Amino acid sequence: MNSRLKLDADKITDAAIKKVMPKEAVKRALGEIKLSENVYIVAVGKAAYSMAEAASEVIPYKKGIVITKYDHVKGELKDIECFEAGHPIPDENGIKATEKVIELVENLSEKDTILFLLSGGGSALFEKPLVSLDELQDMTRQLLACGADINEINIIRKRLSAVKGGKFAEKANPAKIYSIILSDIVGDPLDMIASGPTVPDSGSSKMAIDIIDKYGISTSDEVRKLLKIETPKEISNATNIVIGSVRELCKAAAECCELLGYEVCFLSDQVTGEAREVGKMLGAVAASHAGDGKKMAYILGGETVVHLKGKGLGGRNQEIACGAAQGISGLSNVAVFSVGSDGTDGPTDAAGGYVDGDTYEDLIGKGISFAEMFDDNDCYHLLEHCEGLIKTGPTGTNVNDFSVVLIDENNTAT
Amino acid sequence: MNSRLKLDADKITDAAIKKVMPKEAVKRALGEIKLSENVYIVAVGKAAYSMAEAASEVIPYKKGIVITKYDHVKGELKDIECFEAGHPIPDENGIKATEKVIELVENLSEKDTILFLLSGGGSALFEKPLVSLDELQDMTRQLLACGADINEINIIRKRLSAVKGGKFAEKANPAKIYSIILSDIVGDPLDMIASGPTVPDSGSSKMAIDIIDKYGISTSDEVRKLLKIETPKEISNATNIVIGSVRELCKAAAECCELLGYEVCFLSDQVTGEAREVGKMLGAVAASHAGDGKKMAYILGGETVVHLKGKGLGGRNQEIACGAAQGISGLSNVAVFSVGSDGTDGPTDAAGGYVDGDTYEDLIGKGISFAEMFDDNDCYHLLEHCEGLIKTGPTGTNVNDFSVVLIDENNTAT
Repeated sequence: MNSRLKLDADKITDAAIKKVMPKEAVKRALGEIKLSENVYIVAVGKAAYSMAEAASEVIPYKKGIVITKYDHVKGELKDIECFEAGHPIPDENGIKATEKVIELVENLSEKDTILFLLSGGGSALFEKPLVSLDELQDMTRQLLACGADINEINIIRKRLSAVKGGKFAEKANPAKIYSIILSDIVGDPLDMIASGPTVPDSGSSKMAIDIIDKYGISTSDEVRKLLKIETPKEISNATNIVIGSVRELCKAAAECCELLGYEVCFLSDQVTGEAREVGKMLGAVAASHAGDGKKMAYILGGETVVHLKGKGLGGRNQEIACGAAQGISGLSNVAVFSVGSDGTDGPTDAAGGYVDGDTYEDLIGKGISFAEMFDDNDCYHLLEHCEGLIKTGPTGTNVNDFSVVLIDENNTAT
Repeated sequence: MNSRLKLDADKITDAAIKKVMPKEAVKRALGEIKLSENVYIVAVGKAAYSMAEAASEVIPYKKGIVITKYDHVKGELKDIECFEAGHPIPDENGIKATEKVIELVENLSEKDTILFLLSGGGSALFEKPLVSLDELQDMTRQLLACGADINEINIIRKRLSAVKGGKFAEKANPAKIYSIILSDIVGDPLDMIASGPTVPDSGSSKMAIDIIDKYGISTSDEVRKLLKIETPKEISNATNIVIGSVRELCKAAAECCELLGYEVCFLSDQVTGEAREVGKMLGAVAASHAGDGKKMAYILGGETVVHLKGKGLGGRNQEIACGAAQGISGLSNVAVFSVGSDGTDGPTDAAGGYVDGDTYEDLIGKGISFAEMFDDNDCYHLLEHCEGLIKTGPTGTNVNDFSVVLIDENNTAT
């Protein structure tokens, strides 16, 4: 292993994830916006507790409400009521907590400001259905089971909800809303993150009906009626600010690379292809530039997929790393690594994987059949054999993944 | 369609292919090297005739021999004997022609120079087997049928041949050899192109035996004996110069992009992954930079693969283009195109494909099911529907493929 490149990879991983940790991101954002005096904190999502805690430490506020997943409340926060609720299927606790939020914001005036702290999981956690919970749960289950994508599910959910699709902002009017968002969807489509409680809906009633018909979802007449009601298309009292997303993750990785002396080429923050193919491509990029005599870093982000063919252990970031291993084999000044910002890549205790020019030969030299294990999607064990697992532990944030090609200027770095 | 970007794509395609045409490349190379007075031309491969013709037009020479595929000799060349022979399976005509070449070079002195013009197909066309032709053809067929890759096949062929694996240079000693190479293998591994008649062999006898065992190839005792004889590992009388390869193709594309005002980011000339995944990745790169306000071109080259699942018509470059279409949909200042330098992409009359931000919506608007046709590998017809086929006709060269992302600085270019 090239210990110098591995050390750089670890530094870049730490710096990138730190930048998108909920507390750091909220504090950074609050340092840049000016809120009125009467601030009410509403935090929703998997990172809601950390985000509310951060806000409570740096701004004055009247009171607040947190709604997060079970086991995600880590203590008491002054004047902030914390609720835990069901995810990914919404439950009674979530609805009760959401009602508390509605009650709070409906009584505010134009002099008041809601600091709305939003993170992944908000779609399920922040919910006041316009149908019975049973019916909503049934619809959600049907949609998940039939293979509808997250965008399609959200188009339906917005119309069966009293808060999604901009309706929460409508209810809070005339109070102002600053929506501070940690995005877990590639491309940051604001109206999709937590189904956009403060964002005009880009979907339409027609699209909702089309989805139901396409997948043959069974619905009551009441649901059909609700799907036909249009969502707000203009919202004047809300400002939406994305404070953390895969773009920030890539930017932070880029900044750290520059500090370490690498010239950075940022490729994309919207990569969604097959993980091993993305890795192969990164290997090809590395191999083509290994002889340039320049210290370079190529960075990309997104959320790739793995179409499982084997029965091995791994995750999409580990697949990316292994996908690059053969293409960079023998290049002593090259490394490729990939990391999930949540710290848990697939069903493993690793955040991602690291390979360099020594990895492939190292594995072959140990008598390991690289091709066979890679075909079996057993990237965890491949990487384990060459100390290529990157472990951060669960990080408490989730803004997708980033991958980096590191090229040292000379090839005698090992 | 964005007609401005399409026009640029056509210009870049023309410029890139022109740069790697055999005649242009040979003349450029001969302008840069100094040959002695007694030059003998030996041209071998699919482009041998054009390469010899080019040399005959610009340098003085004693005489020469051309060995190329059937129907590839286009007329008489002064003092050059032209032979046509079998490809990809070597035949008697190839062997006779090769014997003529050996006869020629074995009688040269240290004052003589051989201009050895090499292009793809040389492995089959330039051959003097050390076993019977029947046995050689049988081995070649067995190796092709069992799924051995081109590198593995060449390791075997070198040991059963009197000219491959550096043995031709040995025979020509003490004459000097300038080997002028048009490479059709990604990464330009010199000892693999035409099985390296003038290049030390990087393979070993052990590797040859391993390959035979791995695939269970049946061999005679004589073949086994030959496989165990080591090939030359040092060659002092040959200079090898790659004058055309996918690297030159990409460079030429880059130069043309720069002339057209694009800032160029060269990604790789060694891309070998699944074509549609490479396209998806290029789409993601384009989408991430469409808003940068900079006129940018991202360029890559290589030879991708298509794992056919459907029954449609297409080729790997058309798959790359279609793979990018959805990711750049709606971005009016973005185009992605991909071209095979031989002008024939898959079993089609197109060289490749072009898509831009209008393509996807254009196709959907025409009632075409993009997803269905793409799943059926029917990229030719997809592109035909949106004038996205790039047609150059067969070009007479073959140095793999190149792909380009074009981003205009503003998004009102249509």
